[in-house]
Amino acid sequence: MSLSPHQVHEACKSLRGKIRRTPLVTSRLINEWLGATIWFKLEGLQVTGSFKPRGATYAMLQAMKKHPQGFQAALFSSGNHAQGCAWAGKLFGIPVEVFMTEATSKIKIQATQSYGATVRLSPTRREAEHLCDIAGQRGSVCISPFDHDDVILGGSSALMEVLEDTPEIEAVFAPCGGGGWLSGCVLARQATKRSFDIYGCEPQQASDAAQSVQQGRILRFTTQPTSLADGARTPGVCERTFTFLKQLQGFYLASEPEIIYWCQWLSHILKIPVEPTSSLAMVGAWKYLQEHRESKGPLVVMLSGSNIGAETQKKIWENSCLEITPSRDLQLDQSMQVPLPELLPIQKI
Amino acid sequence: MSLSPHQVHEACKSLRGKIRRTPLVTSRLINEWLGATIWFKLEGLQVTGSFKPRGATYAMLQAMKKHPQGFQAALFSSGNHAQGCAWAGKLFGIPVEVFMTEATSKIKIQATQSYGATVRLSPTRREAEHLCDIAGQRGSVCISPFDHDDVILGGSSALMEVLEDTPEIEAVFAPCGGGGWLSGCVLARQATKRSFDIYGCEPQQASDAAQSVQQGRILRFTTQPTSLADGARTPGVCERTFTFLKQLQGFYLASEPEIIYWCQWLSHILKIPVEPTSSLAMVGAWKYLQEHRESKGPLVVMLSGSNIGAETQKKIWENSCLEITPSRDLQLDQSMQVPLPELLPIQKI
Repeated sequence: MSLSPHQVHEACKSLRGKIRRTPLVTSRLINEWLGATIWFKLEGLQVTGSFKPRGATYAMLQAMKKHPQGFQAALFSSGNHAQGCAWAGKLFGIPVEVFMTEATSKIKIQATQSYGATVRLSPTRREAEHLCDIAGQRGSVCISPFDHDDVILGGSSALMEVLEDTPEIEAVFAPCGGGGWLSGCVLARQATKRSFDIYGCEPQQASDAAQSVQQGRILRFTTQPTSLADGARTPGVCERTFTFLKQLQGFYLASEPEIIYWCQWLSHILKIPVEPTSSLAMVGAWKYLQEHRESKGPLVVMLSGSNIGAETQKKIWENSCLEITPSRDLQLDQSMQVPLPELLPIQKI
Repeated sequence: MSLSPHQVHEACKSLRGKIRRTPLVTSRLINEWLGATIWFKLEGLQVTGSFKPRGATYAMLQAMKKHPQGFQAALFSSGNHAQGCAWAGKLFGIPVEVFMTEATSKIKIQATQSYGATVRLSPTRREAEHLCDIAGQRGSVCISPFDHDDVILGGSSALMEVLEDTPEIEAVFAPCGGGGWLSGCVLARQATKRSFDIYGCEPQQASDAAQSVQQGRILRFTTQPTSLADGARTPGVCERTFTFLKQLQGFYLASEPEIIYWCQWLSHILKIPVEPTSSLAMVGAWKYLQEHRESKGPLVVMLSGSNIGAETQKKIWENSCLEITPSRDLQLDQSMQVPLPELLPIQKI
């Protein structure tokens, strides 16, 4: 592993005063119902509504050192990473070109443009990624959402803040898309020499990371999975993040009804919109408590963001879950599951 | 008018340290789109998720002075006032009895009970109110949601905080149910001797206060109106609040599509659930800007709360409004309006 504790501390120091220190909160009711203390890290209250500006800002800062004469940034993203990079670009006066597919919702395009980024639309994801690669070949600095050391280091600052705020914790739960944020969590644990478990949380319908770690090689979906947790629909992780994912204590998989259930309850109790990708982390913590009957926490649930399109809101609120009070023993209907797309190995580890 | 500026300052002083000082925030995007500065007072981040604990806590404090030997509180409410009183009762160790109808959602009953209040259910609103009156006759201290001096004085603390945070404002917009919070706003203006306009914001479908002020006598709906803004469904205001409502600069009426439109946009931009009653205030500010072409604000939008049941969330997110960018000239479809229930005068003023 090439990233050192020193680099984690350096990233945190560099980000101080540039991004927000987000609140760490708890809920008396949820703690009572689940019989354990749970801390929620509210990255939805980070600038742009997700944890992504942490990695984007640090990647920009490091690129500014390497290219003191100035540069242009390019990236492919349809979601929070685009807004994070656009925001960071605006902060430093760096032009940012974002490649997206034409299927991207108007609201996400608008949010990205509102920070001054240029948005280029392509008919397919493959074409958008290809155009981003070409921009890189022509001299732009490409900022991958997870396959990038500085993005991972910047992301580690979220758990570093949590560790400053809590004397002792039992386990941390974070959503898994490409595995970048979880890699940052593993780095934060190393950097602080603290002892606690870290679990990755994936949709059942996009469980490539869990299966890859189980099989010891990276598996990749041949078509994009369909979970409501759009931040975790990534078809596969990368070598860089896989190294860290193998250091997790395990994965928890969330069904779609479970994701929706905790979206509703956390939005209701915490008074902040909780996007489905964030909800994954809560499903993980809740399943952990079902397995660890004696645990009283404290657990840390990393809520990644609060950006929810109207279509997703509609799906979240289609059926009320608020009549079903949370408890440790609650079992939810799993009937909404759909068959998984095909998973294929992309390389041997 | 029997309430003095001194009493307003006393109420604010008494509440300090007991309830939260809520954030006053603005949105670069909304300001750009509407061409005016708008400050949002986030009472959804108040304890229990609404401004109601301000009035409830102050009413309890004053009742404790009058009844040093202890007392029991009783009230009728189906919504935020019930939670506010239950919370304040728990704070001071005062038993609280809440009378509700059987139609009240389980989630609201649960929230009220979670603060230790006793909930009594009746088949109809009339019966619940009657039982509350009987409790009052038997010695309980009744805390009306708006027809109560101390509740109004406590509520005034929200705008008092805003006035401390802003050197100059042009106009304030607040939702109108029974008129208690608006009465508190008028009192805050008097107490600070500041000069600005105050507007009441009502659903078109529950416009009894606007019509009452226009006709100079209190008119009351014979059946409960049906707006999504449940905090503004009060059938009529009372003498006590009517005195203050006549001192407003006017009313703005919100159609149901307008309420839903701003619920979606404010939740999306501010990253806090915005309940339909809160949205009324934003509709008012937006219509004010449409009428006052030259205005650049600053306007203050009093967002009353963030407690939204799942059924209401479903109605809010049924159709996406986020594809329609806010602007000063935007006109929304008004086709969702339904005929008003009958309005009858209840008394001469």
